[in-house]
This record gives sequence, C-alpha cells and structure tokens, in this order.
Amino acid sequence: MGGEPRVIPTAAIDGHRLLARLAQLGQVGRDADGRLVRLAASDADKCGRDLFGRWVREAGLELVVDRIGNMFGLLPGTESSPGSWVLVGSHLDTVVDAGIHDGTYGVLAGLEVLDALRRTDRVRERSLAVAAFTNEEGVRFTPDMLGSQVFAGALPLEAALGQADGDGTILGNELARIGYAGAAEPGWLDPVAYLELHIEQGPLLEHHDRTIGVVTGVQGLSWWEIAIDGVANHAGTTPTAMRRDAGLAAARLVSWLRDELATIDSPTRATVGCVRFEPAAINVVPSRAIVTVDLRHPEAEGLARAEGRFRQYLERLTTREGVTIASRCLARLEPVTFEARLLGMIEAAAAERGLSTLRLVSGAGHDAQVMAALCPSAMIFVPSLGGISHSPREASRPADLVSGANVLLDVVRRLVLGDDVGRTAR
Amino acid sequence: MGGEPRVIPTAAIDGHRLLARLAQLGQVGRDADGRLVRLAASDADKCGRDLFGRWVREAGLELVVDRIGNMFGLLPGTESSPGSWVLVGSHLDTVVDAGIHDGTYGVLAGLEVLDALRRTDRVRERSLAVAAFTNEEGVRFTPDMLGSQVFAGALPLEAALGQADGDGTILGNELARIGYAGAAEPGWLDPVAYLELHIEQGPLLEHHDRTIGVVTGVQGLSWWEIAIDGVANHAGTTPTAMRRDAGLAAARLVSWLRDELATIDSPTRATVGCVRFEPAAINVVPSRAIVTVDLRHPEAEGLARAEGRFRQYLERLTTREGVTIASRCLARLEPVTFEARLLGMIEAAAAERGLSTLRLVSGAGHDAQVMAALCPSAMIFVPSLGGISHSPREASRPADLVSGANVLLDVVRRLVLGDDVGRTAR
Repeated sequence: MGGEPRVIPTAAIDGHRLLARLAQLGQVGRDADGRLVRLAASDADKCGRDLFGRWVREAGLELVVDRIGNMFGLLPGTESSPGSWVLVGSHLDTVVDAGIHDGTYGVLAGLEVLDALRRTDRVRERSLAVAAFTNEEGVRFTPDMLGSQVFAGALPLEAALGQADGDGTILGNELARIGYAGAAEPGWLDPVAYLELHIEQGPLLEHHDRTIGVVTGVQGLSWWEIAIDGVANHAGTTPTAMRRDAGLAAARLVSWLRDELATIDSPTRATVGCVRFEPAAINVVPSRAIVTVDLRHPEAEGLARAEGRFRQYLERLTTREGVTIASRCLARLEPVTFEARLLGMIEAAAAERGLSTLRLVSGAGHDAQVMAALCPSAMIFVPSLGGISHSPREASRPADLVSGANVLLDVVRRLVLGDDVGRTAR
Repeated sequence: MGGEPRVIPTAAIDGHRLLARLAQLGQVGRDADGRLVRLAASDADKCGRDLFGRWVREAGLELVVDRIGNMFGLLPGTESSPGSWVLVGSHLDTVVDAGIHDGTYGVLAGLEVLDALRRTDRVRERSLAVAAFTNEEGVRFTPDMLGSQVFAGALPLEAALGQADGDGTILGNELARIGYAGAAEPGWLDPVAYLELHIEQGPLLEHHDRTIGVVTGVQGLSWWEIAIDGVANHAGTTPTAMRRDAGLAAARLVSWLRDELATIDSPTRATVGCVRFEPAAINVVPSRAIVTVDLRHPEAEGLARAEGRFRQYLERLTTREGVTIASRCLARLEPVTFEARLLGMIEAAAAERGLSTLRLVSGAGHDAQVMAALCPSAMIFVPSLGGISHSPREASRPADLVSGANVLLDVVRRLVLGDDVGRTAR
C-alpha cells in the first residue's frame, strides 16, 4: 500500500437514487403535525431503520446489528486483507421537527458508495462498511453520539443500554422492542479509517461559495453557569454610585465576551444563550444574575487559553462591580483534529472533480469526533442553505449532495483499493 | 397672615407614646408566619384602622371617614378661619412582609402633632387634620396612592371603588365589609397645605450622616419594555461576524444606560430589573431579548431629555447589532416639585432644634406627590438604616423618629398659628 497515487478511472454514485431515497426516508417518522420526529429507538426510528435495512439487503449486502443497535452494511474485500475495514457512516435518528438531511445523508450516501464500488471495482484490497450509529442527536437518550461512543469503547455498553429517556423508558428495552438489539459486540469491526459525509449545519460554505467542506476537526467546547450576586435595591431611591447591580455585571460579561474574547477575527466563539435576573421586578436593582456561557475553540491550547482569560475577567468583574461570582462547569469536550492525509485526499478528490473546497472546523458534534479516537477519521461537508439545520427549513442543493457523495466515493475507493491512510491504525 | 416670623415657644410631641404606638400598630396584621401584611381594605387593615380611630377618639378628636375610606382626625381652629385647613398624613396600609414605619410613621406622628398643638396653643388661626389615605402601596388594588388620588380629584371615586384585586374582590365592597365606606365626599376638606413625614426608604441621609431630609420633590418615572429581535443561530457553527445576537444587544443597552445615561454624577437613574432571552438554550444565539427599563429624573425637562437620548441610542443599537427593536411605554409619571417656602420652613425648624438637614429628592412614590397638585405640599424624611424599606429589616433610630415628628410639629405650628404657606392655595 501507499507510494505513488495510482490512476483510478472515474466512478460515480447513483445520484438520482440517493436523492430519491433521502426524500423517501425523510417522510418516515412524521408526527400528526407533519413534523419529522425520528427519535432514537422509537417506533419512527424502527421504520427508518427497517427501510435502510431493506435497501442494504436489496443491494445484496450483509446487514449486521450490534448490541447497542448500530447497523452496518458490509462489502467484504476480495484480496489479502478481508479483516482490514474502511468505515463510512453517520446516523438515522433526528431531533424534533427535523430536516431530512442531518445524518441520513451520510448513511445513504455511504450505501451508494458501497454499491458503486462493488459495481466498479471487482478487486478490492480492503473491506468496506457503512454504519448507522444509534442516538447521535442525544435528544431522547444521553449522551449524544451514544452509539459511536459505545462502538469506540468510550462508553460502556451496559451503561448505555441502561440509559432512561424522560419518561423513564430504558434504551436497552426499546432496542429489543423495535428489533434492533443486535448480537454483534460493539467494536466487532476494527476500522483503519472512518469517513463521514454531512451537511455543514452552518453558513460558511454558502458564504464563501464553495461546494466541498474539508473538515479539519471539531471545536472543543466549554460550558459554564455563572452566578453573579449583588444587592437588591430600590430603583428610585438608590443612587447610582451606591449600587451593586448583578444585572449590570452580567451585561458587562456578555459585552466582554464579544469585545475581548470572541472578536470577529478570533477562532474563539462565545455565546450567552440564557440570562436570568432575580428578583426580576422592573423597579428593583437585580440582586442576582444567572448567565450561561458557551465557549468553543478548534484547538486544545486555544480553548484552555480562552478559559483562562474568562476566569481572569470574572475576577476583575468581581472587583469592578462589587459583586461576588460563582462559576460552575457544565460540560467540557476537548477539540478533535482530523487526519491530515485524509484531508489531503478529500481536497485532491474534489479538485479532480472540479469542485471548490474550503477547510473549516465543525462547530457541531458528530460521530466522527468519537471515531477519531479509534482510527484516522475525517469529515466532508456540503453547504446548508442559509446555514440552517435542526429545522424543517434545513436544505441543500441536490447537485451539492451528489457532489459530496462522489467525493466520498473517490476517497473511499483510494483507501479500499490500497492507499495508505496516513498513520498506523492505533 | 405672613409678615415677620413670630417667636413661638418650643413645643414637643410625646416621643415615648409615638414610639410605643408605632411598635403596637406594627404588631397588627401579622400573618401565620409572623409577617406584617396589612393590605388595603383587608381584615388586617380594619384592625389597624380601628386602632388608629380609637387613638383619634381617645385624644378627644373628631374622626371623619370619606367614601374611599380615607380617615381624618380633626382639630378645628379657634379663630376666624375654621374652614382653612392644614393637612398632615400618610397611609396605614403596607406591602407584604413590611416594616413597621412606612406610612404608619407619618400618620401617628401627625396625630401626635394634633395632640401637642391642642395642649400648647389654645388660639389657632387654622384648623388641622391628620389623614390616613387608603391603598397607598398599590399592592392589593391599582393604582397606588389611590385614596389620595380620589381625594385630590385625580381619580374618579366610582372608578376607584370599582377596582378589583387579584381575586376579583371589589374595593368598594371590601370598604363596606370592614366598616370604612364613609359618608364624607372625598375633597370635603380643602387644605391650604399638606405635609407628610416619612422614612427615607433610601440610603442618602445615613450616608451623609444627616437627620432631617428636606424633600424637594418626587422623581419623575418612565417605564419601558424593550423587545429586541435578532436571529437564533447555532453557538458552534455560526461565526461571530455573522451573528445578529439579541442578547448581546440587550447587554449593550444595559451597559450604555450606566456608562452614558445614568452615570454616577448624573441625576438620572436607570435600572434594568428584568431580562429574558429566547429561546434560552445554552448553545443557541438568542433570537429575542425582552428588557425592562426604569428611568427616573427629578425634573420634567431632565426626564424628557433622558427619554430622548434613550430613544436615539435604541436606533443606533439597531444598526450596530443588526437587530430590530420595539419599545413600549409601561408607565410615566411627571416629576413633582414641592413648595419652596415649606422647604425653607422645614430647614429653619430643623436648624432651631440643632438638627442637620439634607435636601434630597424622593425616589419612591408618596401621597404628597398627589396632594402637590391640590395645595402647597412638602415632605420630611428621617433616615432609614441601610436604606432598607419594604422589608422586615426596615429600621430607623428612635431619636430620629422623634426628631422628625418635632420638626413636623414646628412647621405645622407656624402654619396653624398663621404663617403664610408661600403661594395662594390653588
């Protein structure tokens, strides 16, 4: 394997079928109001899984389900290394009132890639599988990316099976009920590479008018709840100089995050999504403000640096506004960097097809960031119109969806036909 | 009347009795948790009114109740002008979990003034009355200062009697039920001056170490609800430059109010007591922020100027943050200026007693601001420890309470004995 890139005749996925299947699967799991709600391990999810499973079998491929419900369509290699797997995939579960592309696109495009490869290349050094991971969205069961985490060994199987949803229903029971508590042990397949095709869910590709997003990694994330305590006072009788206004301190914090930490030219992102004042009366200076802060950065060092500056600012704010501040970390995820050689292969494949590319960092979470701990991984994005996702207004141009799938095909072909991945698997 | 101030021998109210009565009345209307809750026209209010009425009659004074439940203790003049009334007073109703001095102090000190005057001065040119106005706090029935507004002709009697509380109970029915739907027409008494003694409810007298607050007026007030609309976006995938963050715009507004409008050296006060974000998710840029703004200024022109600058800033904010802003006025009260000659008389009386004074503006609302439209009016404040009121922690030094009552006595004596008020009544 490795060495000079070989010349591979052009292949292509069946774009019409891909688009037709995306539309068809997008009608599975509609609720009484017409909303797409295919929550993990629900009846709606069973219908979506059944349809995908049927398509896998109709393609003449073996279907394997593991104990956490991850589904795999298999295309074994024909040569010396049948145990050496390349894996593509994403997820079939959705949020409430979802669009039709998030997750589903990567799974169905993956199936098209298997089918195209089998038709195009009768000799394949490596095996290829397409995965549909369980409960990526994390809407019904926590954590999100549950299926890939169990597959990658980041979450114990029994803990995942024991997760309860908001009604107390247990995931393991639900998987058995809908017929997707499989027999395979998670991790039964040991991939040399993982590739995930996905809609961007952000505005950058559209904004820069590029077709193929070469995803260099996933941002790290640091979530905080900040409680600011001042003194409640009468809005009429308390002179400005004598106030210790928790609400003003909260406003200073929100402005500082934008003006000093997450400026327009910084890779740091900062969002204050929730603010609550107490006692919340129009004529009372707030005694307390509760603020959430969402910090993100594509690099581990940058995330830590942003957190450090944030902590220092809170100390200055304490002195400046005469308040006390308590901070609590709600969640923290280290940034993930995808495999450089895979990124280069994606760019090369796009260039060969005359498609424009943009290197970008994923702001949202994906199964690929979990898989990156297991094997060399990468993601390909296609543009989301208006940057919208997790909404029925989620949309991508059909031509872009087909182009993305063909780039995935090209990269996977090189790997399956024997190209080096870029690092030794684990 | 008028001319050179005559020499009046020193008189004094009965300080011990005043303090004892404040304590006694402060125990009337305690709920099961021991909280003082004497809401207007409630059973607790009836008990407080009954006690005050008993003290009026025990002093040998006539008690009059008008149709809106305002109570008056009367000390008619002995000379030529029995119809020329000086009025002192305040209110007996309280907020929920109140302190014992707010309102009650002015009423009971007024009664002491009537009693002292009758003992000291056998010849009185003017008549004197002490009033306890109905529903000053506005906690149970709207508007606040209801009784004095009806008395002063600012609110029609029938409208006031028809007001319903949160349970739909009608004020007129409640007054009849507790026996305080009186026969006198509101306005039956036509005062030449109104004086109100009150605790400060703010920190200025204590902060400046002064005993007597000479209240020059009551701040005007302008209440706003500001709705800021931006665009909800994913906190991870949306670049900073592409955000239209309603929450950030709200924070800018809060900071601007402090940094530009209500600075430490400005008479303008600005308070943001309530802030609400939508959709209020930690990882979503807020699409909407609802903010309340409480603006106050002691002068009509200053209040209008502050409102104008506020409106202009909202326009700039719209452009700067790419949001839309809708503003709605929730309430507006013009500032009230008290009678200059009465203020001078208060200062002179304090000086004669060796008491330090501070001219200040009331930040809270009082019956005196309503009465100021009817006749020359003024208020005297005594220090609130820690600036606290509307709380069981409300407290004032006993010596200050007695000093304030004696200053009220001195000013009222001059008026009752024939000093000019400073302007022709109406």
